[in-house]
Amino acid sequence: MAEGYRYLVPPPIVARGAAGDRLDVRMSQLIREAAPGQAFDVGFIGVPLSRASISPSAASENPTAIRLAWRLFASYNLDYDVDLAALRIADLGDVTMHVTDIPRCHANIEEAVVEALSSHPPFFPVFIGGDHSITCPIVKGLKRVTPGRTIGILQVDTHFDLRNLHDGGPSNGTPMRGLIESGTVAGSNIVTIGVHGHFNALAYKRYADEQGVRYYTVREVRRRGVEAVVDEALAYLRARVDAIYLTVDMDVLDVAFAPAAPASTPGGLATWDLLEAAHRIGREEKLAAMDLVCLDPHRDGRAQSTVKTGAHVVLNVLCGYAQRIRQQG
Amino acid sequence: MAEGYRYLVPPPIVARGAAGDRLDVRMSQLIREAAPGQAFDVGFIGVPLSRASISPSAASENPTAIRLAWRLFASYNLDYDVDLAALRIADLGDVTMHVTDIPRCHANIEEAVVEALSSHPPFFPVFIGGDHSITCPIVKGLKRVTPGRTIGILQVDTHFDLRNLHDGGPSNGTPMRGLIESGTVAGSNIVTIGVHGHFNALAYKRYADEQGVRYYTVREVRRRGVEAVVDEALAYLRARVDAIYLTVDMDVLDVAFAPAAPASTPGGLATWDLLEAAHRIGREEKLAAMDLVCLDPHRDGRAQSTVKTGAHVVLNVLCGYAQRIRQQG
Amino acid sequence: MAEGYRYLVPPPIVARGAAGDRLDVRMSQLIREAAPGQAFDVGFIGVPLSRASISPSAASENPTAIRLAWRLFASYNLDYDVDLAALRIADLGDVTMHVTDIPRCHANIEEAVVEALSSHPPFFPVFIGGDHSITCPIVKGLKRVTPGRTIGILQVDTHFDLRNLHDGGPSNGTPMRGLIESGTVAGSNIVTIGVHGHFNALAYKRYADEQGVRYYTVREVRRRGVEAVVDEALAYLRARVDAIYLTVDMDVLDVAFAPAAPASTPGGLATWDLLEAAHRIGREEKLAAMDLVCLDPHRDGRAQSTVKTGAHVVLNVLCGYAQRIRQQG
Amino acid sequence: MAEGYRYLVPPPIVARGAAGDRLDVRMSQLIREAAPGQAFDVGFIGVPLSRASISPSAASENPTAIRLAWRLFASYNLDYDVDLAALRIADLGDVTMHVTDIPRCHANIEEAVVEALSSHPPFFPVFIGGDHSITCPIVKGLKRVTPGRTIGILQVDTHFDLRNLHDGGPSNGTPMRGLIESGTVAGSNIVTIGVHGHFNALAYKRYADEQGVRYYTVREVRRRGVEAVVDEALAYLRARVDAIYLTVDMDVLDVAFAPAAPASTPGGLATWDLLEAAHRIGREEKLAAMDLVCLDPHRDGRAQSTVKTGAHVVLNVLCGYAQRIRQQG
Amino acid sequence: MAEGYRYLVPPPIVARGAAGDRLDVRMSQLIREAAPGQAFDVGFIGVPLSRASISPSAASENPTAIRLAWRLFASYNLDYDVDLAALRIADLGDVTMHVTDIPRCHANIEEAVVEALSSHPPFFPVFIGGDHSITCPIVKGLKRVTPGRTIGILQVDTHFDLRNLHDGGPSNGTPMRGLIESGTVAGSNIVTIGVHGHFNALAYKRYADEQGVRYYTVREVRRRGVEAVVDEALAYLRARVDAIYLTVDMDVLDVAFAPAAPASTPGGLATWDLLEAAHRIGREEKLAAMDLVCLDPHRDGRAQSTVKTGAHVVLNVLCGYAQRIRQQG
Amino acid sequence: MAEGYRYLVPPPIVARGAAGDRLDVRMSQLIREAAPGQAFDVGFIGVPLSRASISPSAASENPTAIRLAWRLFASYNLDYDVDLAALRIADLGDVTMHVTDIPRCHANIEEAVVEALSSHPPFFPVFIGGDHSITCPIVKGLKRVTPGRTIGILQVDTHFDLRNLHDGGPSNGTPMRGLIESGTVAGSNIVTIGVHGHFNALAYKRYADEQGVRYYTVREVRRRGVEAVVDEALAYLRARVDAIYLTVDMDVLDVAFAPAAPASTPGGLATWDLLEAAHRIGREEKLAAMDLVCLDPHRDGRAQSTVKTGAHVVLNVLCGYAQRIRQQG
Repeated sequence: MAEGYRYLVPPPIVARGAAGDRLDVRMSQLIREAAPGQAFDVGFIGVPLSRASISPSAASENPTAIRLAWRLFASYNLDYDVDLAALRIADLGDVTMHVTDIPRCHANIEEAVVEALSSHPPFFPVFIGGDHSITCPIVKGLKRVTPGRTIGILQVDTHFDLRNLHDGGPSNGTPMRGLIESGTVAGSNIVTIGVHGHFNALAYKRYADEQGVRYYTVREVRRRGVEAVVDEALAYLRARVDAIYLTVDMDVLDVAFAPAAPASTPGGLATWDLLEAAHRIGREEKLAAMDLVCLDPHRDGRAQSTVKTGAHVVLNVLCGYAQRIRQQG
Repeated sequence: MAEGYRYLVPPPIVARGAAGDRLDVRMSQLIREAAPGQAFDVGFIGVPLSRASISPSAASENPTAIRLAWRLFASYNLDYDVDLAALRIADLGDVTMHVTDIPRCHANIEEAVVEALSSHPPFFPVFIGGDHSITCPIVKGLKRVTPGRTIGILQVDTHFDLRNLHDGGPSNGTPMRGLIESGTVAGSNIVTIGVHGHFNALAYKRYADEQGVRYYTVREVRRRGVEAVVDEALAYLRARVDAIYLTVDMDVLDVAFAPAAPASTPGGLATWDLLEAAHRIGREEKLAAMDLVCLDPHRDGRAQSTVKTGAHVVLNVLCGYAQRIRQQG
Repeated sequence: MAEGYRYLVPPPIVARGAAGDRLDVRMSQLIREAAPGQAFDVGFIGVPLSRASISPSAASENPTAIRLAWRLFASYNLDYDVDLAALRIADLGDVTMHVTDIPRCHANIEEAVVEALSSHPPFFPVFIGGDHSITCPIVKGLKRVTPGRTIGILQVDTHFDLRNLHDGGPSNGTPMRGLIESGTVAGSNIVTIGVHGHFNALAYKRYADEQGVRYYTVREVRRRGVEAVVDEALAYLRARVDAIYLTVDMDVLDVAFAPAAPASTPGGLATWDLLEAAHRIGREEKLAAMDLVCLDPHRDGRAQSTVKTGAHVVLNVLCGYAQRIRQQG
Repeated sequence: MAEGYRYLVPPPIVARGAAGDRLDVRMSQLIREAAPGQAFDVGFIGVPLSRASISPSAASENPTAIRLAWRLFASYNLDYDVDLAALRIADLGDVTMHVTDIPRCHANIEEAVVEALSSHPPFFPVFIGGDHSITCPIVKGLKRVTPGRTIGILQVDTHFDLRNLHDGGPSNGTPMRGLIESGTVAGSNIVTIGVHGHFNALAYKRYADEQGVRYYTVREVRRRGVEAVVDEALAYLRARVDAIYLTVDMDVLDVAFAPAAPASTPGGLATWDLLEAAHRIGREEKLAAMDLVCLDPHRDGRAQSTVKTGAHVVLNVLCGYAQRIRQQG
Repeated sequence: MAEGYRYLVPPPIVARGAAGDRLDVRMSQLIREAAPGQAFDVGFIGVPLSRASISPSAASENPTAIRLAWRLFASYNLDYDVDLAALRIADLGDVTMHVTDIPRCHANIEEAVVEALSSHPPFFPVFIGGDHSITCPIVKGLKRVTPGRTIGILQVDTHFDLRNLHDGGPSNGTPMRGLIESGTVAGSNIVTIGVHGHFNALAYKRYADEQGVRYYTVREVRRRGVEAVVDEALAYLRARVDAIYLTVDMDVLDVAFAPAAPASTPGGLATWDLLEAAHRIGREEKLAAMDLVCLDPHRDGRAQSTVKTGAHVVLNVLCGYAQRIRQQG
Repeated sequence: MAEGYRYLVPPPIVARGAAGDRLDVRMSQLIREAAPGQAFDVGFIGVPLSRASISPSAASENPTAIRLAWRLFASYNLDYDVDLAALRIADLGDVTMHVTDIPRCHANIEEAVVEALSSHPPFFPVFIGGDHSITCPIVKGLKRVTPGRTIGILQVDTHFDLRNLHDGGPSNGTPMRGLIESGTVAGSNIVTIGVHGHFNALAYKRYADEQGVRYYTVREVRRRGVEAVVDEALAYLRARVDAIYLTVDMDVLDVAFAPAAPASTPGGLATWDLLEAAHRIGREEKLAAMDLVCLDPHRDGRAQSTVKTGAHVVLNVLCGYAQRIRQQG
């Protein structure tokens, strides 16, 4: 069991389930609990905060839901012919949260990022949210760990998340605003893929334009193809920053595909486009970390479609990552 | 509160909800209750009738569901860079219905159309059904208001709605038949987009052919692209009629996208195609009125995907409309 | 009522429901219960076994669910302008099952196939499962009926179903393995369309390669188009075998489209692609039989999207079949 | 198949399902389809009308739901040691309905009652609704068949159903009013058990008092015990009328027990009380007929608790009836 | 529309719906929006806070859900023969909340209580939560308005809500602790009805004993009868305090009756017991205010059983209140 | 982690979750994984078999569901003032199952019982099923461990479970029959509480009578009180046998209380009665072991009412057990 972290608690659920077939290796069999000092390639960190969500959300339950879901996924990916069994994958547990002190929760997240990355040899951190408010303290924490590095954000989201911080404080509507206003990330180093429809106020579209945030609507993604858009976005960021942070808000999907993303919309992305994007982004050499947010498993149907999709998005990023380090190795 | 209408009652629910962010203007903040004599650009009229549906339906609850949903939509549309705050939008309330006298309900609808359009300077009426039986009295009412105008119908639907009137009277399976047989609209002035599969009897396909109804299957829409099909349909109607009436039956969507449309089918349209069509149709200069029918909010899941989609279809038509009148203005 | 079969019992539910419109002929009005000796074109056989499923499944309830659903489908298909009323369609009832003796259930299935095909003039059998374990005894039965015929399998599935038979016996993870190991079908005479993602172990991908199983991932289907892939698969099999058996595992669909397929996945096929494939395969002259498996109606939502899709897939195959025999006739 | 009725159509669904155990006789095995002229003890008549319901209801689907549910019930009742296999039970099918002409539906019901009772030797008719509006034409039909007989009503319901007929016509809120105003049943020959809470307007409570309707609130039932109240009600009616008609509105149950009764309420009866009442009433020698109404199976959860309860209520009445005729025999 | 409050915003939803029957007066027709200075008997105040809940909750949506539900309830109560139309009932709107500053939310609640009670002649305030954390600032506010008054609490709840304030701050697990520790209410002036089972830690049972909190388990309520227990509790408090505050946590109900109370338990109260208690408490002359908490409408099934029950509990208290002031008047 | 068992595998899920409050000890914090040789008071053994169920069931998932639910329960029981923290409680994991060989599954269960009880000092075993077929091999295993001991069964169930073994083999309808026919338990040493309604065939009621099975219907339980019936049943068994085995089939509950028990019925027990019975039985000195069966968590609603109830039933038995050994100690 993981011991010695200050801002991280062991995972509340451990799934050891196998497929009942000795040849079928599942993700749940690969993932080990981390202890400070250990080395691994990929580290999962649960960030069970959703009381900073504007609308009520149980996204805080998502790290546990994803942990339970690992039993359902083989380590091997047939689309890309990659076996994640080649990676050492660790679960560092969940960031410690407080019931009623949201600022302290955000501070704990930032500290946990610093602690996690300082307690191990370099690894690829995957933050499992939680609502989108967590992205701001996570990226601030990454910045503290490697201060000299310029960070860019590749945001896959149906919203800009650029709301003003005065009306409600740092919520799931504000992470990009918070990063820009705090000087952590320049607006022009943010690319947002998937915004569309009647889900962003004109005022924030204007703010995005003023700050130089680059964005692609779902409509544009659909017309040009997700591959072209992702490649363009990565090329843009690659030329400007030292490290790219990927944040995936599950509400970028059409509501039929993500009933459990509280703000998913009609006309959003299809799962296949998001999965393709995830793999493509995973291969990016400057990709430094990622998060997955705004997935409320309490809203999922019995088929658990959104949880399965969220878990698969993470796996597809890791497949790209595995291919890249295999090539580099 | 709206007073003075004879065939319309005030909306049973008024949603005033805002986003909790002063810069984020929601549709619920724009829509005003109408009083006779007032001028506005767009007028919503609820038509809460679903006891004329062949299979049981709670589409009568849809006007209320849509009214509650306006809180979820910003006035600004990012795909088309249009802000509906530029429009004056009014809610005229619901057509008065009777519990057990369906012919009287249909008569009330026709009278309410005449009354609504006679009580205000010209506006773009949006009828929120209700089951599809309402389209027949609505269009008859429009015809009475402007008798000399030739009306064409652009029907987005998975069914022809051409059932015979003898076996069950004027139901949600008969609106197009009723309009043809009453001489209100010529069969050759009807274009239906989205019919397909095992959901239309051969006898009614033959009737459609005899009457010159033009139609596009979903399969054809998918092969040619929704834009091409919609443009062709609009060009066809534009050349033949003075005014185009749009009727959107939500069952044109694949059942995965519209679980709350009682007759939605596998293989139907995707939300993105319907949304694109809606905007394109909204820009049509001869578009005179529209309805949205066969959305039973009691069948929706917790994500309310069908209600959200229905509301967004209306908004996309209005975005096209707003762009057109902006250009004309 | 069907009498005289030994391994088949009459359907537990008979749906006689019509549309309430004399011109609208429904599938439930066409399908007749079979008695030994009768001639017909198409015969439905229910295979209500799902206790051989690895994960819990109520796919045993699917034959009844499909029978109830026939009331919802017109006999006429508008996409292909075919009326299935031209076919004589019979329901032979369900294969007799045992509560706790799974090997006997599998044996009964094989015997029922032999009995059904021996009791009637030649017809196109449609097996409604049930979990995927049923495909192995069905194809063995077909082989016994026409021993000299080489059988190929066109499998539409998100899994290879090539698990080893040692760890769990003949389950829904093993039908293709069972057919290969028993010498019933050569691995190189199997084509699988729709495998993808983290849902197949590396060991079984390797086994597929060793045995010469040909396969197309969903990703490839999406890039090349389902028509091209299906045509290529059919051409490949047509050149190699005497008879093609189609097995459709509903989990090939994206989980948004098939919530009731217990193992459906994010990124799977869309309904429209599966429906198009079904019709195309139905026209294949060497197509000899088909099954539909892994549809658990207890997991469907109120819209019954998966059951409706499964029924429509069968109908589209029959439309292709009707066109073919019309051309031949 | 039932033929020869004018106002009745054969049941759209026939369930022949058995328990898979030769010693376990299910209700579905006992019930036979009726043909005019046949003799039997009990006759089921489906009354699939719910478009006369004030709020949207799919109670029209209940006769089919109950028919499917007979597979779940043994013929033997352990509580009362009665085997319904001793009774001859027939299904006469459904009353013919019209899609949009509600008055014609009500007229058809009345005619069907006359036809059914005139086409067979005397039997105990069980009407499976449908919404509560059906009770009025049913009782009128019974009155026509036996004009000289005074009929009393034992109504188990959370509402008086005494709404005025002017505001909405004959709906599910008016059956008792309709019977009183038409002179079919005197108000003082109606006893209502189960009214309570904020679910009846003061005006109608006053009307009940004026007309001499006798009623027991749920609170009184709970305090005195359901046995005492039912016995008192039966004694009261027995002394006053020639024949007692039982009408059970499923909304008399607490909403936890009857989620599928659209108007069930908190604080209503528990299943055990309703079941006990049903048996007690079934033994009443003057009991002449019964109905079960306002059960919308589309609202039931997967456990189908309300449908199961509704079916069991009917069975408990029949157990009482079987005991009575056994004693008389 | 309500204007002039500083800590209260107008209700986001106004339901004006009637029953469609002129004689059937519904609660939604009685309730008026309040403006400062107006006089009324009963005032509803929404307290839409649930981010202070330990487990995720959408109880913040409950005030809106209850407002929508008023359309379903007649003003007349048949059990007690009381018509609430005799009362003047006002809706003062919702307390202003902040998205991420929970302490500010609690401060706003306290201020809103002071403001509401200071802005009108005396009335009976009904606070519609929200999670149980709101009770602490509400009672503190009441204390500020009438400082000299001793307040006792009658808590109907399955939990003590006496958790320590150090581990999570003022959450829905701490309101009674907060009131005791702040000196607002003495432990011995708290009576809790409904605690039971494995839902309270031993440490807090001991704290309750130390502080003199009096409590009745559900088991005791069931054995002695809810009437006796409530009467004893009221007598105890009446003898000790000047004013009694009633707080109803919906999780006191058995989970079958309150699926939408996030912490409802097996073995809890039945609706009928809670409803009887509510009326009995409403008649208490020292009853000064009440709240209803921990009802998350997002968890309710389609029958909305928990919302309906919550609304009816409030109405039963008001019926008792109306009877009392009628007697006093 | 548990190692060294041959017929038991470690629990696939380990829940370590705490309440976030240092003073609130949860069951998940008490339960330790067992290793052969260890001593403890109570041992949980998962029996994840449900493919022997007559109707489809996912009761195989129940051991995992119960393990996850331990996080929700405090160790302290307020009703009986008992803290289970006084007990040493171990989880021995799950019995090894086979996918398609049901007889081998049953054999494994019997062997696992022998192995578990032979590998540790005496403890109270709690078997978490699974379907009811598991009771037969469990009791056979217990008999093998202590051959000289006469075993009696206290069955809380809505069915006799005495179906003949010829029609379907050893299923969830046959455990009592299997125990009688194998001579493991005499029919007269079986007491069944909770049978009722139309859910038991007459043939099996007669078999029960012939074999001397003693039974109490729910109706009798309700009339006499659950305490009296349980006491009488225990006294009867205590006088006749050396050891009492308790088997709780969750379908004994009314379907409103146990939607996830596939065969729960209207009119069944209420949770409070079952919970009271459980505690009373737990105090019985001859109680030697127990199981909990036929709980399919896939059928539970979001409130997880049935899983919570099942877990609480086990806890109440343990509270009785703890009180008893405390008294003995």
